[in-house]
Amino acid sequence: MERLPLRRVTLSQALQALAAFPVRSARTVTVPVEDAEGRILAADVSAREDVPAFRRSRVDGYAVIASEVRPATKHQPLRLHLLGEVIMGRAAAADVASGQTVRIPTGGALPSGATGVVMVEDAEVRGDTVTIFDGSDAEEYVTDVASDVRSGERMFSHGAVLSPAALGLIAGAGVAEIRVYKPPLVGVIVTGDELIPPKQALGPGQIRDMNSVVLPAALRAMGFATREYGRVADERAEVEACFRQALQECDAVIISGGSSVGERDYTPAIVAAAGSPGVVVHGIKAKPGRPAVLGLIGDQPVFGLPGNPVSALVVLESLAKPVLLRMFGKTDDAVPLRARLEHDVDVEAELEHRIPVTLSRQSDHVAARPLLGTSSQMHIMGFADGLLVVPLGKGRIAAGSWVDIVPLSRSRTLR
Amino acid sequence: MERLPLRRVTLSQALQALAAFPVRSARTVTVPVEDAEGRILAADVSAREDVPAFRRSRVDGYAVIASEVRPATKHQPLRLHLLGEVIMGRAAAADVASGQTVRIPTGGALPSGATGVVMVEDAEVRGDTVTIFDGSDAEEYVTDVASDVRSGERMFSHGAVLSPAALGLIAGAGVAEIRVYKPPLVGVIVTGDELIPPKQALGPGQIRDMNSVVLPAALRAMGFATREYGRVADERAEVEACFRQALQECDAVIISGGSSVGERDYTPAIVAAAGSPGVVVHGIKAKPGRPAVLGLIGDQPVFGLPGNPVSALVVLESLAKPVLLRMFGKTDDAVPLRARLEHDVDVEAELEHRIPVTLSRQSDHVAARPLLGTSSQMHIMGFADGLLVVPLGKGRIAAGSWVDIVPLSRSRTLR
Repeated sequence: MERLPLRRVTLSQALQALAAFPVRSARTVTVPVEDAEGRILAADVSAREDVPAFRRSRVDGYAVIASEVRPATKHQPLRLHLLGEVIMGRAAAADVASGQTVRIPTGGALPSGATGVVMVEDAEVRGDTVTIFDGSDAEEYVTDVASDVRSGERMFSHGAVLSPAALGLIAGAGVAEIRVYKPPLVGVIVTGDELIPPKQALGPGQIRDMNSVVLPAALRAMGFATREYGRVADERAEVEACFRQALQECDAVIISGGSSVGERDYTPAIVAAAGSPGVVVHGIKAKPGRPAVLGLIGDQPVFGLPGNPVSALVVLESLAKPVLLRMFGKTDDAVPLRARLEHDVDVEAELEHRIPVTLSRQSDHVAARPLLGTSSQMHIMGFADGLLVVPLGKGRIAAGSWVDIVPLSRSRTLR
Repeated sequence: MERLPLRRVTLSQALQALAAFPVRSARTVTVPVEDAEGRILAADVSAREDVPAFRRSRVDGYAVIASEVRPATKHQPLRLHLLGEVIMGRAAAADVASGQTVRIPTGGALPSGATGVVMVEDAEVRGDTVTIFDGSDAEEYVTDVASDVRSGERMFSHGAVLSPAALGLIAGAGVAEIRVYKPPLVGVIVTGDELIPPKQALGPGQIRDMNSVVLPAALRAMGFATREYGRVADERAEVEACFRQALQECDAVIISGGSSVGERDYTPAIVAAAGSPGVVVHGIKAKPGRPAVLGLIGDQPVFGLPGNPVSALVVLESLAKPVLLRMFGKTDDAVPLRARLEHDVDVEAELEHRIPVTLSRQSDHVAARPLLGTSSQMHIMGFADGLLVVPLGKGRIAAGSWVDIVPLSRSRTLR
């Protein structure tokens, strides 16, 4: 391996370099299936039962022997003796033999002997006689045993994020509890002498601390727990003490500010001094995000993000998130949105660019509008739905092109 | 207006019919901006301060009078007297006059008199003299007052869902607390004599209750609070008592099962008896979801969903969600995913269809694979990422077509 740290590599080279080192696994916990929405499976889940466990009727009708009723038509109807009725949630009381039928509701258990169902619309009942006018497709109205899921079948694999429907399928197969990951704890240290929280009055030269709001919220939206270490002054001893405490208490640590190469940019030195392998990457060929620091102390990922909130969030989404997701045994593989670019994009080809875009639904496509501005303007991220990646060496993308948009992490799907 | 209930209308006709009636608003609450990720704004939010509130340097360099340094080149450098240094988070101690400069860090406040910044790379310092080798673009390295957000400017409108970056922008503009909606409470009643929770042993003819897992989880993923009324037997008096209690306690009520036209399908009668306008729509020209009931008791939306969990979830996503979102003063306008269909789809053109699909990232597009199966198979929803809508009258969509996929509600963006 090349000597560390790697400098000015591409984003994918940076992720590759990190991939060579092990990352600690998130802890796991067993939870009732009904409480597991949005959680990540820590073990495969297999069905404990056949679904359905018995042959079910798909319609309201009459349980019959399919081969017997098949020839029945309006002109040559077939008369069957009505034995009774299947009650929902119970086994059928009577078996069906030749010349016989039993009334059955949608979802009811087929009686022994029956191999099909005739819909109520295709039959007429008078006393205990049922006249069948169309029995041609009686077999189609039966749901077979295990036609949904077979007992023992693996339904979901380690790493799956559980949707509401996935929980239903798991519960439906008789699994009451599942093993999921606990959200790993990410420590957030925000450095900057000039930063003031939103409630305090702003003095000359001071600015609002956005990173203490943005970074923990984004991490929680990604599925992590966060611990905040407040705003720390740009003094090496203070930042270093804070970083060591965070390393003790958390699974991963993020420092915003101080990641560049200025005299007050202590992050690389602090990470290097804290342990091995230390700084793995310092500086990437990407904009925003050039001064990012990626490292590991033992199996704990640590990141130095730029102090600029736009850059910090882009680096968190594009570089830190894939590494942090490895604690769940996975990498980031969110499906990008496919959209049509509304305006030309024209940026320096020597860097990989991530440009915030808004998405809007048009009559026959989704439109992506690049938000023009600089990384000193937080409104370009505040209004953005996702990021357009302009690969290294490309620079220009023409209006009207189809592009992939990586959605920004957020807690809700509704808009 | 046509006499109610409307029967067998299209889904958009059903939503239109509901739109004629007012729906109760969700209650609102004031929260600290750092706790508001994923919440929905109940009022517009305007900036309380200019961002930035002072002229800032975009680079590490020397604050100068831009017009004075513009002619400076490597061959004809300009010498300036170094007065001192701007400290982060403070006003500059000295003003800059002709022939003078002050050292300034990235983000520092420009001294009075200065109109530009020369990067450290383009200058050399010796003692208290700074030699400028390139001053051509000094004005570009200054961020103007209010260039991000202007005090009083409306940043976000009522109904916006707050992303991490949106919170940063709001906090950055000096807004510490915002008014957001409380999640409305949706009551969930699951009916069915045959339904058994996952921990109990399954008897003959009995099946697992999936809806008690799926429906509350999906509602919570959509941003609602839920109250569950347990599994209720298919007895009109029991379901009715439960429904009336839920109407008292909740903002909206969902009943699964009993929405069809069979003799034990009590939902339409119970809704009709509970108040006005009662049942607005009974039955839609859509699959799955044909037997859906949509109604209102006063300003409380009520829904009768099919008992089948696949159908219940599709109706919840496509019909109930847009109506429930009106409690937040909005309708559903999630941006659909654009994907390429992997297989032909061929369904009856007389119904609108919603077909579960999985999405996968291909080298240059997102592929949507229709999950074949019937609505009696929960695995088609359990594995699905979204729904492909096949409009009424269409029936067939060829493999390779670009299609819009409506994502299923889930809590996380990561996968």
